[in-house]
Amino acid sequence: MDAEPAEVEFRSEMTVELVRHSAADSDVLFAARVSTQGDKTLDHIGEDAGRSRGLINYLMRDRHGSPFEHNSMTFFVSAPIFVFREFMRHRIASYNEESGRYRELRPVFYRPSHERPLVQVGKPGAYTFVPGSAEQHALVTGEIETVCRDAYASYRRMLDAGVAREVARAVLPLTIYSSMYVTMNARSLMNFLSLRVHEEGSTFPSFPQAEIEAVARQMERLWAGLMPLTHEAFVAQGRVAP
Amino acid sequence: MDAEPAEVEFRSEMTVELVRHSAADSDVLFAARVSTQGDKTLDHIGEDAGRSRGLINYLMRDRHGSPFEHNSMTFFVSAPIFVFREFMRHRIASYNEESGRYRELRPVFYRPSHERPLVQVGKPGAYTFVPGSAEQHALVTGEIETVCRDAYASYRRMLDAGVAREVARAVLPLTIYSSMYVTMNARSLMNFLSLRVHEEGSTFPSFPQAEIEAVARQMERLWAGLMPLTHEAFVAQGRVAP
Amino acid sequence: MDAEPAEVEFRSEMTVELVRHSAADSDVLFAARVSTQGDKTLDHIGEDAGRSRGLINYLMRDRHGSPFEHNSMTFFVSAPIFVFREFMRHRIASYNEESGRYRELRPVFYRPSHERPLVQVGKPGAYTFVPGSAEQHALVTGEIETVCRDAYASYRRMLDAGVAREVARAVLPLTIYSSMYVTMNARSLMNFLSLRVHEEGSTFPSFPQAEIEAVARQMERLWAGLMPLTHEAFVAQGRVAP
Amino acid sequence: MDAEPAEVEFRSEMTVELVRHSAADSDVLFAARVSTQGDKTLDHIGEDAGRSRGLINYLMRDRHGSPFEHNSMTFFVSAPIFVFREFMRHRIASYNEESGRYRELRPVFYRPSHERPLVQVGKPGAYTFVPGSAEQHALVTGEIETVCRDAYASYRRMLDAGVAREVARAVLPLTIYSSMYVTMNARSLMNFLSLRVHEEGSTFPSFPQAEIEAVARQMERLWAGLMPLTHEAFVAQGRVAP
Repeated sequence: MDAEPAEVEFRSEMTVELVRHSAADSDVLFAARVSTQGDKTLDHIGEDAGRSRGLINYLMRDRHGSPFEHNSMTFFVSAPIFVFREFMRHRIASYNEESGRYRELRPVFYRPSHERPLVQVGKPGAYTFVPGSAEQHALVTGEIETVCRDAYASYRRMLDAGVAREVARAVLPLTIYSSMYVTMNARSLMNFLSLRVHEEGSTFPSFPQAEIEAVARQMERLWAGLMPLTHEAFVAQGRVAP
Repeated sequence: MDAEPAEVEFRSEMTVELVRHSAADSDVLFAARVSTQGDKTLDHIGEDAGRSRGLINYLMRDRHGSPFEHNSMTFFVSAPIFVFREFMRHRIASYNEESGRYRELRPVFYRPSHERPLVQVGKPGAYTFVPGSAEQHALVTGEIETVCRDAYASYRRMLDAGVAREVARAVLPLTIYSSMYVTMNARSLMNFLSLRVHEEGSTFPSFPQAEIEAVARQMERLWAGLMPLTHEAFVAQGRVAP
Repeated sequence: MDAEPAEVEFRSEMTVELVRHSAADSDVLFAARVSTQGDKTLDHIGEDAGRSRGLINYLMRDRHGSPFEHNSMTFFVSAPIFVFREFMRHRIASYNEESGRYRELRPVFYRPSHERPLVQVGKPGAYTFVPGSAEQHALVTGEIETVCRDAYASYRRMLDAGVAREVARAVLPLTIYSSMYVTMNARSLMNFLSLRVHEEGSTFPSFPQAEIEAVARQMERLWAGLMPLTHEAFVAQGRVAP
Repeated sequence: MDAEPAEVEFRSEMTVELVRHSAADSDVLFAARVSTQGDKTLDHIGEDAGRSRGLINYLMRDRHGSPFEHNSMTFFVSAPIFVFREFMRHRIASYNEESGRYRELRPVFYRPSHERPLVQVGKPGAYTFVPGSAEQHALVTGEIETVCRDAYASYRRMLDAGVAREVARAVLPLTIYSSMYVTMNARSLMNFLSLRVHEEGSTFPSFPQAEIEAVARQMERLWAGLMPLTHEAFVAQGRVAP
């Protein structure tokens, strides 16, 4: 077991990659126009950017949500398990995550960076966070590193003794990294972002944990690149999913 | 009003067009492999067709459904309203249909062809259909044409008198054509096909109405072209959605 | 066929009946408290109405939606088919509707009352409705009655000639009544109400057709009787589903 | 910190309690009969047990799933987090779980009993489990107890130093107990059971992890008590969700 601790890796980042997509502002437009024009109107799309922007803004404002569903984005996300626990509460999405039953999990753990606020103040339901002291950061770093190294060594001892992976994983901490593919459409993504990104100017408040917010912000950036008019309307209308 | 009946059109076909997609067998493979390999394995996909086929068959057989969700297909469907009534009972899909509130509906109506069996025999829950007689076909054709012409003329009279479209449409028959965009992933589509296509050799029986079955068969053909290994596995495993 | 027209019935009402339910404000409270207290806290519920109201208001305002899902209401709704077409676009609900394939549909049709505004004014996306003239009401009544009688007589002629119900129904107009059971939880119902009831003071505008709004208002009244604190919070917070 | 380890508790059971329900076989019958009879037929239900059984069996066999949705069961479940991770992949259910952000988690951990098979044999996709040796059981017990005690002590040290709960929980192992309310209808529950209970005679194989299977079996027993005819049909038809 001596060699194991050396392999253990600590990170402070979430990573998100756009793997597949079929998503453009024009997908919103053709779906919306079938309601009013009754035929396939793909030809006319894009000929007038001002009208396209206007239609998308109107749909967002009046909560015509269904035209925002005819598109698809698949992201590959790496994050600690406590982030995935929150993520998978969103039921309008498709998930495939690496499995602790089918494979040996790798010793990669999340450890907050020095920028991560560590101290919660205020009352339940209205918490805010403030930076931790140097001592608190040192404590958190030390505790997480020690617990993770010890837990992973324990995991490996059980595996080496022939214990099934699904049993041995019980000792692994919630901060271990996992990875998944998640597929969403823009409507579902806007719902996710409205709850998992905290922005001034939002119509509704949201108080996401910093780690899932870091994932959500990366997803938002990638989506904004694909559907700029839709993203612009989402922000302009107070970050409410239609 | 004299001119109106001349415009009225009768058809016997459903039309389905694939408008957008991001769907390939490889989308199943990468999603499945993350479970067991824990990393993005796109590079290795497609290098071995035999292994790919084997993995897809295994997933289908053991009902690992989620890898079949990371893809998207948008179809443009034209069919009578009674077909859309059945279609929209499928909740795992995205819909945008032309709206009788926002636009004047066109006088295009479905009328069964001579191949459409007209007579139901057997007991509830186990109906089968047999061809209609020449008299029955003549009756159905005549009744549908007369009712549709009269109803559409009535619709136009109300519109011409300034009555709102959403009120006037009340008289239109269920056989009037509408059109919609529908977006599904392969898992959701397999569920739809398992219920809306009747095939010998299916593990579970299904007794779809002929008209929605005609739509479903066109969707199946288009999907099979995009994801041939997945379609092959679906058929081989008794047409059960995983 | 002579006797048939006499049976035909015209109505102007939607009916909604609460058939089954397991829904109370306390269902929201116990679900919310598990998050913060981590045990079953049913004993403490209801002991302090002021705190209960406060907690429900907080959940609604901060969009903690999941505690509003642990309840169930089943309604029996009678309405014309064009209402059910709109209703079933709501995918977070369970539906069973009478089937035109399995049974002969009865000759009961919706005809707007004199209170129903008939004339649409304004631009697409911002329509409002104004009352119809006496002539318009007479026209609508006459047209609907004539088309429905004729269509139903045609339906019966096809049935009498041995044509299958699923074929013959093609001629029936969208205004024919159907009935269904629909089961929803309070969260899903709030989403439905936010889109299908137009109320001043709503955070978001909605422009439902009058007939589905009549159904929705009856559902809202029945729900408000079961979960008064939740309903009060929904109204107070601008009729936005959490 | 000295006192802490004494509080730590280890258990080997999952607990499931039925908290609320509106669920009976008659709920299936009334929903099914609306399709064929078109009116509320509650009066006739239960008058003929043989016919009721026959109708439920027919619905199950021919995959008429929607009548099984007009009912609701709320369970209170206590289980380790790795079980909830699998559970919440089932998207057709409502969840409220205790929150590691809002409250301090208690030091209760799952540790397999001596009956729990520890060794996995066979190939991926077809694993079976065999009992562990006495040495393996001793190892697993010792490792889990040590890691959990150390991790919980670390968690408490961070909390005592003023670190936010949502940060400190990162060190807690996947085997820590949590609790939740979950609400499902019978159709959704059957889908869950078809995947999370392994029974000979099932039409489709399933290979659930033992711990979630223990939860599922308790849910099945409670449900069978509420809806005996539906449960009987589910078992008789090969444990496939309609």
